[in-house]
Amino acid sequence: MNIDSVDFFYASMPSVTYDADGSQDTLLVRVRSGSDEGWGECEASPLTSIAAFVTPRSHGVCQPVADSVLGERLDSVDDIARIAALVRRNSMDLLQAPHTFSGIEIALWDLLGRRLGEPVWRLLGGRRAYPKVPYASMLFGATAQQTLDAVKSAADAGFRAVKVGWGTFGQGSVDADADQLAAAREGLGSDGFLLVDAGQIWVDDVAAAAQRLPALEAAGATWIEEPFLPLAYRAHAELAGRSGTVGVAGGEGAHSVHMATNLIDYADVRFVQIDTGRIGGIGPAKAVADYAAARDIAFVNHTFTSQLALSASLQPFAALPDHRICEFPLTPSELARKITAGRLELVDGELLPLDAPGLGLDVELEAIRPYLHDVEISIDGHALYAGEHFGGTR
Amino acid sequence: MNIDSVDFFYASMPSVTYDADGSQDTLLVRVRSGSDEGWGECEASPLTSIAAFVTPRSHGVCQPVADSVLGERLDSVDDIARIAALVRRNSMDLLQAPHTFSGIEIALWDLLGRRLGEPVWRLLGGRRAYPKVPYASMLFGATAQQTLDAVKSAADAGFRAVKVGWGTFGQGSVDADADQLAAAREGLGSDGFLLVDAGQIWVDDVAAAAQRLPALEAAGATWIEEPFLPLAYRAHAELAGRSGTVGVAGGEGAHSVHMATNLIDYADVRFVQIDTGRIGGIGPAKAVADYAAARDIAFVNHTFTSQLALSASLQPFAALPDHRICEFPLTPSELARKITAGRLELVDGELLPLDAPGLGLDVELEAIRPYLHDVEISIDGHALYAGEHFGGTR
Repeated sequence: MNIDSVDFFYASMPSVTYDADGSQDTLLVRVRSGSDEGWGECEASPLTSIAAFVTPRSHGVCQPVADSVLGERLDSVDDIARIAALVRRNSMDLLQAPHTFSGIEIALWDLLGRRLGEPVWRLLGGRRAYPKVPYASMLFGATAQQTLDAVKSAADAGFRAVKVGWGTFGQGSVDADADQLAAAREGLGSDGFLLVDAGQIWVDDVAAAAQRLPALEAAGATWIEEPFLPLAYRAHAELAGRSGTVGVAGGEGAHSVHMATNLIDYADVRFVQIDTGRIGGIGPAKAVADYAAARDIAFVNHTFTSQLALSASLQPFAALPDHRICEFPLTPSELARKITAGRLELVDGELLPLDAPGLGLDVELEAIRPYLHDVEISIDGHALYAGEHFGGTR
Repeated sequence: MNIDSVDFFYASMPSVTYDADGSQDTLLVRVRSGSDEGWGECEASPLTSIAAFVTPRSHGVCQPVADSVLGERLDSVDDIARIAALVRRNSMDLLQAPHTFSGIEIALWDLLGRRLGEPVWRLLGGRRAYPKVPYASMLFGATAQQTLDAVKSAADAGFRAVKVGWGTFGQGSVDADADQLAAAREGLGSDGFLLVDAGQIWVDDVAAAAQRLPALEAAGATWIEEPFLPLAYRAHAELAGRSGTVGVAGGEGAHSVHMATNLIDYADVRFVQIDTGRIGGIGPAKAVADYAAARDIAFVNHTFTSQLALSASLQPFAALPDHRICEFPLTPSELARKITAGRLELVDGELLPLDAPGLGLDVELEAIRPYLHDVEISIDGHALYAGEHFGGTR
């Protein structure tokens, strides 16, 4: 069976704010092959990712993503890896290509899982799926008290792990950051996992990051995430050498397997966080999970959007029992909540990857129709892309 | 003075082939501030880079590039670095952003140089510009004889260095590659620099690459370029440990300073090749040049397009006398040749960076008008971009 069509659906909230909240828009991807279909989701900047699918060819290794996907054979999981290699080669000089392909690749797994009646994690070789400890992901409050209240409400809702991040953390005084961290710990209680996300705020300034280590240790933080630009390996490794019980975490922006494994090999991260919606999909994320597991590095998903993205991001490490922590978007936008009918439910503070064909969730296109955008891209009057969704067919 | 407008001009040859010839299309950028203007060029996939400029905001750190540029102050070189930091922060999750910003940043330097009456290399702190030894960059011929003839004609034209690459190199037998390399050396003569570009063909297979080392050494190759995926540092370092007199080269795809310096620190490249049209412009390329120079690693430009791109790519190392080799696009497309009025001429096999305000070349918009494309991008009927060029104004 060949890939008959790839359709994109760009949706956003009526108002998109400056908050670091990635659930405010989405680019959903529907792939059809014969009578089967599958769905995936691309992380960030829908219009740019659509453009990378339809852009005219610049030269032999700067081809649009579409040209490596439409019409290709899709009979087995090997075909997904084969198509991924085509994209990597043919779109070598097209920087956005991995983000575009991520949603497509996820949809290919979903489609194949549905066709074969298996959850994706089983197609990846897993025998059973193990429960994860989801952490509630939230932004720091404007005040320490707001942070305390928000973390406490997550703890009250059954979360044993909470991540706080962004806001003004790292930009003001060391004392103000210490107050925020203490408040988060107080809200969480003494037992829970406290995770902290610095959002690259110190660029590559190890001294600035190290000033926060005492407060991070005092608050019993499990990790400090993205202290620096993701490719500043030396800064990461220097901080990791001084951070004691606090592990360094990172990887969400990785757009290739090597970009993630280099964080393990050269940046000394103790937690590698992978977004299947960016790295090129589920296959590359699984390669990173296996690499991490072999080196006793914890694999963690990065997910700040929908339940569809959450289910996709759990597949690579669903069958790894020792990799327990997972990110769980606690307060996604109304749009993100409406994307799927079912959802992954918390049971006793744990989350079990779904045991259902594909990703195990159905996309509710009618529910999100009010949020969909008409996109038109044309060159010299010739439409490359037009309408609420794009029927890329070959 | 503020940045009043940023306009893009997308042009391509009437027919764009599958050859690895990056001069088949272009995305030119014109920036205006007060009565001054400057020009730059983005490498690869014009439509995608335009989309990254105008795309709606996804969230606080996934903003369109336009929002960090339009209306910003531009009084000194520090403003260029400040704007670059804004783009890096505000477009953190927008993968294509560095490619889009590269052309803008180059135009900012050109504009500032024209305003101040100085060549860009002097604004970068250089006292004088030193001549470079340009290498003629070409693809392997379909046969060894074709390669010999093509290299010989470059040598006859005065080139003392030639780079051959792509074609079927690395994909067929080791003997066939050896024949090609011997032919290239024969065409060049015994004295010239012979450079070889593998175009990532061995992915991360060190053994496959190492099989070609004897022939590379026999042909006296100065470097083997991009043997692997650019982030496969370990593979690079392993090959570098075995490659004797043949240095490993790479870096053209670097889209941040760290991505380039990591190649020096972890991949053991002996030559770091930077495309100012991809890495984020001239400022980041200068940072890499300084980093390389301090470590006795040769900085080399990557340029396969126009003379405008060539002039931009020479600025970061124009004032470094010991960094001699530079890439020179030997047979750019008709379009690429028409972009500028003047050009950098070879004198006794050497190329001297221009000593004229800005980049020292004027863009001939009328000459390339037949190649320009009308681009339209609209969302829900609202045009984000329309016309032969885009007047992004604030």
